Amino acid sequence: MESVAACLYRMQIGDPAAPSLLAAAGHEMRTEALACVPAGKAPFPMEDIRISTQGDRTVVLIPFHEGERLYGCGLSYQKLNRTYEVIHLRTDHYGGRDNGRTHAAVPFYVSSEGYGVFLDTPVEVSFYLGGTVRTDDSRKPQARDRTTDPRWTSVTPGNWVEISFRAPGAVLYLINGASAADTVRAFNLLCGGGCMPPKWGLGFWSRLHTKADADAVCREIGAYRERGIPLSVLGLEPGWQNYAYPCSYDWSEERFAGHERLPRDLLDQGIRLNLWENMFVSPASTLYDSMLPYAGSHQVWNGIVPDYTLPEARAVYQARHAALAGEGISGFKLDECDGYDRWLWPDHASFPSGSDAVAYRGMCGLLLQRMIDEVYRARGERTYGLVRASSAGGCAFPFCIYNDCYAFSEFLTGLASAALCGVLWAPEVRDAKTPDEWLRRFQLAAVSPLMMLNAWASGAKPWKFPEVTEGVKEAIRLRYRLLPHLYTAFYLYYAKGEPPFRPLLLEGGDYSGQRDVPLSDTENPYALRQTCEVVDQILVGRGLMAAPIAPGQTSRTVVLPAGGWYDFYTGERVCGQTLTLNPVPDHLPLYVREGTVLALQEEDGLCLCCFGESGEGLLYDDDGTGRGYEEGAFYLAKVSFRRRGGVTEHRVTVLHNGYPAPRITIR
Amino acid sequence: MESVAACLYRMQIGDPAAPSLLAAAGHEMRTEALACVPAGKAPFPMEDIRISTQGDRTVVLIPFHEGERLYGCGLSYQKLNRTYEVIHLRTDHYGGRDNGRTHAAVPFYVSSEGYGVFLDTPVEVSFYLGGTVRTDDSRKPQARDRTTDPRWTSVTPGNWVEISFRAPGAVLYLINGASAADTVRAFNLLCGGGCMPPKWGLGFWSRLHTKADADAVCREIGAYRERGIPLSVLGLEPGWQNYAYPCSYDWSEERFAGHERLPRDLLDQGIRLNLWENMFVSPASTLYDSMLPYAGSHQVWNGIVPDYTLPEARAVYQARHAALAGEGISGFKLDECDGYDRWLWPDHASFPSGSDAVAYRGMCGLLLQRMIDEVYRARGERTYGLVRASSAGGCAFPFCIYNDCYAFSEFLTGLASAALCGVLWAPEVRDAKTPDEWLRRFQLAAVSPLMMLNAWASGAKPWKFPEVTEGVKEAIRLRYRLLPHLYTAFYLYYAKGEPPFRPLLLEGGDYSGQRDVPLSDTENPYALRQTCEVVDQILVGRGLMAAPIAPGQTSRTVVLPAGGWYDFYTGERVCGQTLTLNPVPDHLPLYVREGTVLALQEEDGLCLCCFGESGEGLLYDDDGTGRGYEEGAFYLAKVSFRRRGGVTEHRVTVLHNGYPAPRITIR
Repeated sequence: MESVAACLYRMQIGDPAAPSLLAAAGHEMRTEALACVPAGKAPFPMEDIRISTQGDRTVVLIPFHEGERLYGCGLSYQKLNRTYEVIHLRTDHYGGRDNGRTHAAVPFYVSSEGYGVFLDTPVEVSFYLGGTVRTDDSRKPQARDRTTDPRWTSVTPGNWVEISFRAPGAVLYLINGASAADTVRAFNLLCGGGCMPPKWGLGFWSRLHTKADADAVCREIGAYRERGIPLSVLGLEPGWQNYAYPCSYDWSEERFAGHERLPRDLLDQGIRLNLWENMFVSPASTLYDSMLPYAGSHQVWNGIVPDYTLPEARAVYQARHAALAGEGISGFKLDECDGYDRWLWPDHASFPSGSDAVAYRGMCGLLLQRMIDEVYRARGERTYGLVRASSAGGCAFPFCIYNDCYAFSEFLTGLASAALCGVLWAPEVRDAKTPDEWLRRFQLAAVSPLMMLNAWASGAKPWKFPEVTEGVKEAIRLRYRLLPHLYTAFYLYYAKGEPPFRPLLLEGGDYSGQRDVPLSDTENPYALRQTCEVVDQILVGRGLMAAPIAPGQTSRTVVLPAGGWYDFYTGERVCGQTLTLNPVPDHLPLYVREGTVLALQEEDGLCLCCFGESGEGLLYDDDGTGRGYEEGAFYLAKVSFRRRGGVTEHRVTVLHNGYPAPRITIR
Repeated sequence: MESVAACLYRMQIGDPAAPSLLAAAGHEMRTEALACVPAGKAPFPMEDIRISTQGDRTVVLIPFHEGERLYGCGLSYQKLNRTYEVIHLRTDHYGGRDNGRTHAAVPFYVSSEGYGVFLDTPVEVSFYLGGTVRTDDSRKPQARDRTTDPRWTSVTPGNWVEISFRAPGAVLYLINGASAADTVRAFNLLCGGGCMPPKWGLGFWSRLHTKADADAVCREIGAYRERGIPLSVLGLEPGWQNYAYPCSYDWSEERFAGHERLPRDLLDQGIRLNLWENMFVSPASTLYDSMLPYAGSHQVWNGIVPDYTLPEARAVYQARHAALAGEGISGFKLDECDGYDRWLWPDHASFPSGSDAVAYRGMCGLLLQRMIDEVYRARGERTYGLVRASSAGGCAFPFCIYNDCYAFSEFLTGLASAALCGVLWAPEVRDAKTPDEWLRRFQLAAVSPLMMLNAWASGAKPWKFPEVTEGVKEAIRLRYRLLPHLYTAFYLYYAKGEPPFRPLLLEGGDYSGQRDVPLSDTENPYALRQTCEVVDQILVGRGLMAAPIAPGQTSRTVVLPAGGWYDFYTGERVCGQTLTLNPVPDHLPLYVREGTVLALQEEDGLCLCCFGESGEGLLYDDDGTGRGYEEGAFYLAKVSFRRRGGVTEHRVTVLHNGYPAPRITIR
């Protein structure tokens, strides 16, 4: 193990030329920021880590002890604590179970002890998270008789996390932050740091029906304006292309006759256009002939699959997307690079570069994001978009993951889980069966990295259910109100690796437990205990916490982490360790931590709202669209406050002065 | 491809010393019976099969064409038609989805065109069943624009079934029966032919609560006798051992003080004892020290995992089980050799023989069955038992698969699917929430290879719900009434490879279709069509068909295959291609095909019931317990009948006369 930073160790296993997620993503490690992450004490002697081979598998053993809780191992949707699970991590569409097949198959976990482990390889990795016991271990759990000993349990805590994979090599990282939150930050900084979306990307998005044409685009903008609903981005689905599924990447002249001017016309109205695509190239595409030499052995949906590990293939792709960016297109939605095995190339497919098909699948989402990001970088612009697969290294790309599932609880838990694997997750609104569901989905989307109505099939509008239109409008307005706070949160993601949306467990507490569930020969034959965790609350930047209400939910509990909390709307202090909302409010429950300075975009301008008696917060600003922030063209200030006898004193300390200070009021 | 029989071709791929399912099972191919299976015309030129390697994967391409329906690829529980699916076949506990993780991961499929393909390897095998399209294929489906072409579909029929696996070698079989039914028969005969259970095995089984003791056993028998409920086998769960989970394989002196005499005492009353076990050896077992040298690298539930590919380990196991058989134990329930990844050894575990851990997992159920079967074979006896994992080669072992699931519809579909992969599936009764559910579960079990109440946790008795006790009794009596028919059906399984329980599709018709399901961005984003199949009816031996009623079901449709059908109970002819039961009857709906001679055990003795105007049937008998039938000690007759003016003429043609003819009456 070689030390890379105070909190970061690195070990090359096997062939250094083996495929790598970080190499595919191509970001530089954020060395300076990494050096500032506080390191913890060593969780175990480094020499206790064991590496061996068994047949064609490489096996890594990381010490583990009973009582540790392990989080991560890829984007999950139902639970965060993965201790004792077996996870075969593989890029795929999430299929309703947290079994390792997921949109961000990130081979990284973080322990409640603070440290984390990351294995940099795009191949399938199997994690045995503490429940295996080796015959030659000197310390073993005691065997018990199930018939007579009530302490018998189906779970056998062992001494190791065992990790196995089949590849010529991989790099193993041990991240030893002072806390789980520090380790997650260090992981993100190792991956290149968090992305910095443009300001417009944090506004409200609406995707049109797939058959929409240029007239529909204009009508849509008019309809929003008429109703006073702010809108930042319009998304066009497959129908923008003259041929899609597989894709042509060429405009439909029929539906978008004036496409050369359309994006600029919209820009003049403050609206960006985002275009859908998948990676399968149609024989009808103008790119087809140039791409054919770089195609894999198998087609998908009757289109060829380019091998984007090849610079020649990337050049063809980027030339086309640079042209679209030149027309004024703001970004892309990169669909279906994740899986459903039956809709992707088989595991034995071959590619002209010689890439293994499973490894390519693991890298594909990263390669696509990288190509798009480079296109906009070359223009000095930022982009923001959607992608259905990402992995380690993806945090530095301005893309949010989405999928085809639609369970509200999973959409919410995905937000929390994403922070544990260095990605962003967007719980989009598509449709609803009831007005209540419609409203609750908008409220959830308002506290996510990308607030979007995706009506590609339904054609639904925010005002679909008149009885909740006002509530939906409020949720969208809330989003714009929170924008300065979100923007500062993203700066912390970019500069310090701090995830803008986080589960409570990264606050340091436990927030998880186990509940006995009775033995049942039909329901629970192994008398499995049930994990109870707080998976339905989310921290949004520093000091703000959302407890979204699910459709149909009539009462809920809110867990309040340590430190005082205030109701966001009333400013009233809420007491206790938990709060019961019964009945639930119509609005999205939001709470602010004691001592927070919350930057809000109010009608009369940027307002810093102080909660509690004293505290401090950060305020970040830049031009909102360019890449100058990377070279210092930004403003950063620390704002502290103290209330004395009804008077609020505050002090603004400018930390970085590369961009004009915004005008603020303080409350 | 080398021809092995008229309908069977064989090709060695790679290393002939690679692990093999058939070698693990150890049966001889049934050459003579195989020679009698009619062959079909070649489905494609043999030379069109392609074998190649891609990285460490071997890839087999089998020609496929649109319109073919493919069945098999392991025991499934929700559907039979697997066309266009991707299945990663692996021994595991079925987890509620037909995704390849299943109790019988049999790498065999059969086409509606009649032929079948079997790849003999215990490693994980991936099947891409007709939905992949290769870039270099000359014939490809036409690409279509999703936005404008209503013929766009997410399914792209290709020219191949693609099969890939990672092992040094495997044997590929092409089975070219004249029909799918012939191919399934040939597959079973290649695997050694079907098993022949003892007669008692086809009676009613009851498993006691895990904490039951010798007194409870006696009380149980008394309680059955008192209520006039026949009982053939009592099962003891973990509590028979002095230490279980992991196992000692030693009697509990506390609960079974008189265990040396108990099995014989019960035998005198016509009751057999079957003992539960799993394969994990407790440190408290008398076998532990002898087994330790053959243990794998990982423990399971704090017990060692013996490597049963080693003859030394088998000798230790068989010595103990021979002793138990010598005490009069009739057989075993071999639990938990299937999976749940977290409760089995990891994929990278090592074993002293050098066996790959995944390959060993694939063979384990077979090795256990083989050891038990050999123990009873050495005694000249038959056994019948339960096992939670099997595979190709398992059909010749007298074991039924069971699992921890409990969905009625899956239990029923499992019966049908088992016939497509050469195994037997037992839909056991464990518990019920309502009297109706209780009754319907007994009725389903009555038409399965093993009718069992498994009350290991619930302690439930057949008379649990007084309001349906009479119905439950009737179901158990029905089972005993059907016994001669079932026994003859098993003879056909043994001698001709004919599965005793079969889905309708093996009758030659289609019985499956597809239904359009509307596009929905929340429910069905790929506008997937739904497969509709008859998965809730089952053929039981020749000429008998059951259409079980699910709990809570108030009406159902019964599909009647070609040929006339009669109600089993009334003898009345039922008309039409489908029958609607509304309301459903209290009893199990059973139908008999025109021309069937059904052997039933009536109160006044063995009765051959003739259905229709003329026809014929087989009658098989032997001593019911010994192995003499393998050497010709059995009776087989063909019984034909014709009705003329109210008089039934019949003729009995003795086909084999190695055992006394049973006394029969004919109706």
